[in-house]
Amino acid sequence: MTAGPLTDAERIARLRLARTPNVGPVAFDHLLARFGSAEAALEALPRLVQRGAVPSPPSRDAIQRELDAGERLGARLILTGEPGFPPLLAALDPPPPLIWAMGDAALLARPGIGVVGARVASAAGQRFARSLALELGRAGHLIVSGLARGIDGAAHEGALETGTVAVLGGGVGDIYPPEHAELHARIAERGVIVSESPPDHRAQAKDFPRRNRLISGLSLAIVVVEAELKSGSLITARLAAEQGREVLAVPGSPLDPRARGTNDLIRQGAAVCEGADDVLRVLESLGGLREPTRRPWRGPSAAEPDDALREQIAALLSPTPVSPDDLVRASGAPAPAVFAAVVELSLAGRAAFGPDGRITTG
Amino acid sequence: MTAGPLTDAERIARLRLARTPNVGPVAFDHLLARFGSAEAALEALPRLVQRGAVPSPPSRDAIQRELDAGERLGARLILTGEPGFPPLLAALDPPPPLIWAMGDAALLARPGIGVVGARVASAAGQRFARSLALELGRAGHLIVSGLARGIDGAAHEGALETGTVAVLGGGVGDIYPPEHAELHARIAERGVIVSESPPDHRAQAKDFPRRNRLISGLSLAIVVVEAELKSGSLITARLAAEQGREVLAVPGSPLDPRARGTNDLIRQGAAVCEGADDVLRVLESLGGLREPTRRPWRGPSAAEPDDALREQIAALLSPTPVSPDDLVRASGAPAPAVFAAVVELSLAGRAAFGPDGRITTG
Repeated sequence: MTAGPLTDAERIARLRLARTPNVGPVAFDHLLARFGSAEAALEALPRLVQRGAVPSPPSRDAIQRELDAGERLGARLILTGEPGFPPLLAALDPPPPLIWAMGDAALLARPGIGVVGARVASAAGQRFARSLALELGRAGHLIVSGLARGIDGAAHEGALETGTVAVLGGGVGDIYPPEHAELHARIAERGVIVSESPPDHRAQAKDFPRRNRLISGLSLAIVVVEAELKSGSLITARLAAEQGREVLAVPGSPLDPRARGTNDLIRQGAAVCEGADDVLRVLESLGGLREPTRRPWRGPSAAEPDDALREQIAALLSPTPVSPDDLVRASGAPAPAVFAAVVELSLAGRAAFGPDGRITTG
Repeated sequence: MTAGPLTDAERIARLRLARTPNVGPVAFDHLLARFGSAEAALEALPRLVQRGAVPSPPSRDAIQRELDAGERLGARLILTGEPGFPPLLAALDPPPPLIWAMGDAALLARPGIGVVGARVASAAGQRFARSLALELGRAGHLIVSGLARGIDGAAHEGALETGTVAVLGGGVGDIYPPEHAELHARIAERGVIVSESPPDHRAQAKDFPRRNRLISGLSLAIVVVEAELKSGSLITARLAAEQGREVLAVPGSPLDPRARGTNDLIRQGAAVCEGADDVLRVLESLGGLREPTRRPWRGPSAAEPDDALREQIAALLSPTPVSPDDLVRASGAPAPAVFAAVVELSLAGRAAFGPDGRITTG
């Protein structure tokens, strides 16, 4: 990633590249490393796609409309590598290309603690989340959550006075759920609202994986308060673990379905959380950030896959996800070239990265 | 321990030795190994005590009264090393010298699963214990508990049809609590009631540590269903861990004080138990019994401490418990001789073994 301030042209190019169909964080990160700038990457796009449709970047007008929408809301665009980009997000592999922040963006310099859980939460669970956030906030910690009904909303409320980050799937101006309109406004005033989406984007189901990854990415530790099996909070917890962040879960009775997910996390090794002390103890035990457990398989950015390798990799893909290691082993080619080939295939819509970094047909 | 059937005289001598003041399981085990028989150990007692009162074994009449009481109740005395002594108890270090069993003593050949918990248990907790015992019983497992109010009683009830062991602090004929009189009778009929105490002994507070050690000792795994911090069930769980047995705990809400103890066990490494499947999974993972974690510091049974070593060890003791290793290190003497000296001091009431094997002044 280039150091120093970005030119306006490069900022706009990066926003365009990030908004280009088929360009996810993995491809964005790779293209920037490979071509040195988003401007160069945008130019190179057509020749990277040998078969399939070349993805078309949005027009400059569309990008200007996004920038205008942000300005109207008083939101700030922060690109990876720019000052103000949250250090914990920058440590991700790959980092999100950009965030929009509405409110006190300075809060994002502090490491957060994610407090997440069920939307249909019990009164006791919400009270627990609120007081946990309050105590952690008083202990100097930033509380990160997703502004959803239930546990998320309670966590934000508990931390309104001390600092809280609401991470949205929609744009920072997208108020959802409607009953959190006032909470949204108060966080925009006293805390900060963050999203990867364009500021006026309405949240859709497909936005939530990236939002969950942002919640865990902004946090040193994630506390799951109530969660059924197969719920979104468990996905956030899994992402946190993959990102090398701590996971805590609040235990509950086996007779309470909302404790199934948290008890299962504990069974899988999450720390038991009965209150702020447990979180503080886990944080104390951290000797700084751990590396993400999913290691990159990058390499020299100049790796240029030839047509043969690209088609060989394409043939190895199927709807069943495979790991990068599998592809390297099966192809016998060097990892960086295999990686570049997968990115090129993903640009053409012929491959897709799953949230866990595994690869399927597009 | 001698092999083969015991003579009547040796059986009575063992019962006398076991009932001698200051002779706990550690001293019993040591004296039997050192002198080859309880008859010889009883004879040697006076010369083992150089300072302090020689403990006097109960009269033969008193022993006969204990045997008569057992006979009246239809209970059976089973000494360590005799056929019918539960294999899991025999594996303890040291094993209890004897048990009384009333009911179907053949059940004791099977390894048990302990289900224990709070006396003042919630209705949900009792329901959970009952159905856990029922399911584990149907899966072929023997359920061990302490016949106390609350969780213990519920566990026995759930396993009445399939096999259950009630371990008492008082004698096998001591009905406590009174509201469990019918349960006591039903277990004596269909299951088995076990105790280290004389059959008509009324339970006292000091009997419960040995009763708890028997519950965990009869069990491959202990499940703690509800427990406050510092409760007896946690002691049973700790003993189980020291004995190399598995510990599971049922999680609960941090807002429920009866989950404090179980959540804390999980924090310390106990397996999460949400139902019978969790227990069965843990049992499957066992490759047979593990060795107790507290290793003996025995040695050649002929080790004879001299006066100087005995007094040196006595001087090293205080009300603060020390480990055997500490004493060996501080004295510089060989472990078997130090061990023999501690046993002799304990017979004179000048040393005492704690439940964890550590040693204090008597």
